[in-house]
Amino acid sequence: MKCRRCKKEAEVELRSHNAAFCRDCFLLFFYNQLNKAIKQFRMFTKKQRILLAVSGGKDSMSLWLALVELGYDVTALFVDLGISGFSELARKKVVAFSERFNAPLRVVDLKEEGIPIPEVVKKLKRPACAVCGRIKRYYFNMEGLRGGFDVLATGHNLDDETSRLFSNVLHWKMEYLEDQAPVLPDEDGLLRKVKPFFRLTEFEIAAYAFFKGIDYLTSGCPFSKGATFSSYKRHLNRIEYESPATKIDFYQGFLKNLRPLLKKKAKEELHHCRVCGYPTFGDVCFVCRLKGFE
Amino acid sequence: MKCRRCKKEAEVELRSHNAAFCRDCFLLFFYNQLNKAIKQFRMFTKKQRILLAVSGGKDSMSLWLALVELGYDVTALFVDLGISGFSELARKKVVAFSERFNAPLRVVDLKEEGIPIPEVVKKLKRPACAVCGRIKRYYFNMEGLRGGFDVLATGHNLDDETSRLFSNVLHWKMEYLEDQAPVLPDEDGLLRKVKPFFRLTEFEIAAYAFFKGIDYLTSGCPFSKGATFSSYKRHLNRIEYESPATKIDFYQGFLKNLRPLLKKKAKEELHHCRVCGYPTFGDVCFVCRLKGFE
Repeated sequence: MKCRRCKKEAEVELRSHNAAFCRDCFLLFFYNQLNKAIKQFRMFTKKQRILLAVSGGKDSMSLWLALVELGYDVTALFVDLGISGFSELARKKVVAFSERFNAPLRVVDLKEEGIPIPEVVKKLKRPACAVCGRIKRYYFNMEGLRGGFDVLATGHNLDDETSRLFSNVLHWKMEYLEDQAPVLPDEDGLLRKVKPFFRLTEFEIAAYAFFKGIDYLTSGCPFSKGATFSSYKRHLNRIEYESPATKIDFYQGFLKNLRPLLKKKAKEELHHCRVCGYPTFGDVCFVCRLKGFE
Repeated sequence: MKCRRCKKEAEVELRSHNAAFCRDCFLLFFYNQLNKAIKQFRMFTKKQRILLAVSGGKDSMSLWLALVELGYDVTALFVDLGISGFSELARKKVVAFSERFNAPLRVVDLKEEGIPIPEVVKKLKRPACAVCGRIKRYYFNMEGLRGGFDVLATGHNLDDETSRLFSNVLHWKMEYLEDQAPVLPDEDGLLRKVKPFFRLTEFEIAAYAFFKGIDYLTSGCPFSKGATFSSYKRHLNRIEYESPATKIDFYQGFLKNLRPLLKKKAKEELHHCRVCGYPTFGDVCFVCRLKGFE
């Protein structure tokens, strides 16, 4: 197979783009897709300060490098969940990346905060991923606001977004569909959120990480069964295989045709947490309550 | 496995209903689902005259028998497409059914009408299924209106409806989504349309046909590749297997949550065909033009 652009031997075949690329031309394609997403949704400019949520996995690490290489003002935030045998390794990869590429990194350590995930999960007896997600969101927003960042970026890719969309559509979860987009505006004192990788698939990001020699964490969190939307990803991949470009069409079609019909319901009024100032329905926010404030 | 209702040995397992039934209790379940659909959407009453489109296949033949057994005033309409080796057989099954159950049947013969499908397809060079569907719709409506029927029923089942919905959602075909429902009101001089089997799966209908000893046509039309939505049916069956009841939830959720958001666009104004009176955008309708009227 030949590279579509330069006719050299191709290394990557992309059926959804009806193309194959050599390594160099794939990287051009990759940055092109990323730029297209950033520009199309006016995610951020080079003058703005981006806080990037990094986990140590391929998506967030790849986005980190790509934003650095494209010259954006990006600072990574790693939340050390305090899960032994997992968090240490993730943290090591993230710190090593930061040193190798001389890229700014902030770390929040949930042990130091007094709420490591294993203890919280044991105490609350609720699904680990839901609780953990809520705590991470808290720190991403708080660090972003305190640090004067303009926008919070995450590494969600096309497979994440379409499998979530698929699940929300199969069960017509209208309130979740309202919240699904590559850009969520700032509201209730929370940071603006963007997903610059929404046009790129897991496969494309893995190829990028491989070509760039990024050393990322491949093991999954022991608390998640790794099952989040994974069966929907499998089904969508089968459909994509039969009809290339279905995933991106499904997602873009949703943004164009359905999303404008969904009117955001008026939310309950939010207060600010008496302890930390974070938006909350009650008097004290979820994280401060976990920390023992009443 | 035991029957959920009477504890006798079960013959059918229905994972989506978390149930298994013996033959007699399955038939009760089956009529119950059918009645539920008819009542929920006020499809028709026992005082109304129903025209049922029959093809000779399992769905329309099963609906025919079920409506007869439930005491509805139903007349079947078979359109003989003039496809040699296929239409003769289908017609034979339909006529035999009519005689066996003493059930009223009307037949339109496209050869007699001068527009057998093979000739039309050869002439128009367009996809056979689209052309054939349009011609059948014409005769179903015309026979229904001329015969003074109140409603036109078709044998579409849950798999038909959800695979169509799935396709329309994956590609966000909003104008098709607007037209997807178990009941479509009469408009533009066309008959009201209902799909009483929308709650029942292909498997459930096949079990009904088998238990009732219905002799139906199993071969597919040689002009269709049998591929209409069939890959989507396969994907949905896989999802249903992993999460029973997804199909019915997907469809009912659509009716409840999305459909009300879709506002019907104002249609272009329809005229009546100068030759036959059928609604048409032009001066002469599609079928009359096929017949040579200008």
